[in-house]
Amino acid sequence: MATESVTTTATGNESDLLSREELRDRLLTVGESRYHHRHPFHLRMHNGELSRGQIQAWALNRFYYQSRIPIKDSLLLAKSEDPAFRRAWRKRILDHDGDQDGYGGVEKWIQLAEASGISREQVIPCTGVLPGVRYAVDAYLALVRDSPLLIAVASSLTELFSRDLISLRMDKMRLHYPYLTPGLAYFVGRLTQAPEDAGFALDYVSTHAVTRAQQEQVIHALEQKCAILWAQLDAIDYAYVAPGNIPPGCFVPDCD
Amino acid sequence: MATESVTTTATGNESDLLSREELRDRLLTVGESRYHHRHPFHLRMHNGELSRGQIQAWALNRFYYQSRIPIKDSLLLAKSEDPAFRRAWRKRILDHDGDQDGYGGVEKWIQLAEASGISREQVIPCTGVLPGVRYAVDAYLALVRDSPLLIAVASSLTELFSRDLISLRMDKMRLHYPYLTPGLAYFVGRLTQAPEDAGFALDYVSTHAVTRAQQEQVIHALEQKCAILWAQLDAIDYAYVAPGNIPPGCFVPDCD
Repeated sequence: MATESVTTTATGNESDLLSREELRDRLLTVGESRYHHRHPFHLRMHNGELSRGQIQAWALNRFYYQSRIPIKDSLLLAKSEDPAFRRAWRKRILDHDGDQDGYGGVEKWIQLAEASGISREQVIPCTGVLPGVRYAVDAYLALVRDSPLLIAVASSLTELFSRDLISLRMDKMRLHYPYLTPGLAYFVGRLTQAPEDAGFALDYVSTHAVTRAQQEQVIHALEQKCAILWAQLDAIDYAYVAPGNIPPGCFVPDCD
Repeated sequence: MATESVTTTATGNESDLLSREELRDRLLTVGESRYHHRHPFHLRMHNGELSRGQIQAWALNRFYYQSRIPIKDSLLLAKSEDPAFRRAWRKRILDHDGDQDGYGGVEKWIQLAEASGISREQVIPCTGVLPGVRYAVDAYLALVRDSPLLIAVASSLTELFSRDLISLRMDKMRLHYPYLTPGLAYFVGRLTQAPEDAGFALDYVSTHAVTRAQQEQVIHALEQKCAILWAQLDAIDYAYVAPGNIPPGCFVPDCD
């Protein structure tokens, strides 16, 4: 594939270009080491160590992330000049917002929070969300807003790893936190949506990263997104696992 | 002061306008409850409970905040159309950047980090900074960049509270962490700079917040800034006080 006439700075050194399989392997390696399935808070969750109040705090805080996903996808949609791409990607907005009130992933997350024992009125305004969670999610919106389309798409690639985590989480929730069972519809939907979405995004970056430098940017975008997910759990674990760490003004569970 | 002809929505209800003293009291109340002098990590620091590695992690992470202050002040300067205001405010950029290489607050913070036992080459690139610290600092830049000048100025009002904290911190550092003593020049400078800066900013918001709504926005901006400082310490406390919590890719001290 290498040709001497191609300059490294303009198009990348094509001899260094990763194959689709090599790029995929690099991305999977990032997920293995940096995706939040390894986070201490998720390990506690899956071991059944979390109190109901801690589950509530997780559901309430993570709602801020869930509520921003269709906004993120709208920012991403606005970057594309290709109707076919936009048609394919807008499915994600539909998945989260639904076709009418009371449907869609955002609503289903509210139902999960309700199953944990908090009201939708507590969840929807996001007033009790930890600043650390808010800053991390806002960093995701800024990454998508301020990056080229290729990088914005690459930042969604954490979905490559979400089916396995969601599948495990559902089993562990039914086992350790049976009160959540009526609220698992969000995860049921994501079991099929996430792999479809990830497949589309992986194909997109594999096709459109045409220099090694772009491929490295794609890999770095996935690392950045993993850090954004991880930092949300850092903030939740810090505030709600050890006593005395809830920042001023944030959600305080009314049960242990 | 109230006149029936003044509508609440256009200019605020002037009868509700806080006096300069009332506004100041409200701001001081925010500081008392939300400024990071109350944060568990600072309490540990002042009690002499931190290891050298934990002091290093604090100095390295907080450098990201220090390095962004003159960028924040440049964004703020760009909002003003008044040469007199810009002349007054540019002092802050001078304080942090100095007149030549090797002077200024940013350099002095590097010297503090060096006194803790890490090299400037480890500190300056900010590669090991916790994502949670980065997102919080970037949220401060976004707040200043995306808000009107009045709110941007108000977000600096945490300096009303910094002299007391810095004064206490210097005493405690000399007592508990004497290896830091050669690196305290940054704090010496801030002991006089911070009160001057805070006095200017307090006078500015007291004069330019001419409706109750604007006064409430000023108070809210101070709350937001307190949350930004607090969240940085949340991230540092979480990652470096309990074992096993350092996120992938972040600074790992080579001493306890």
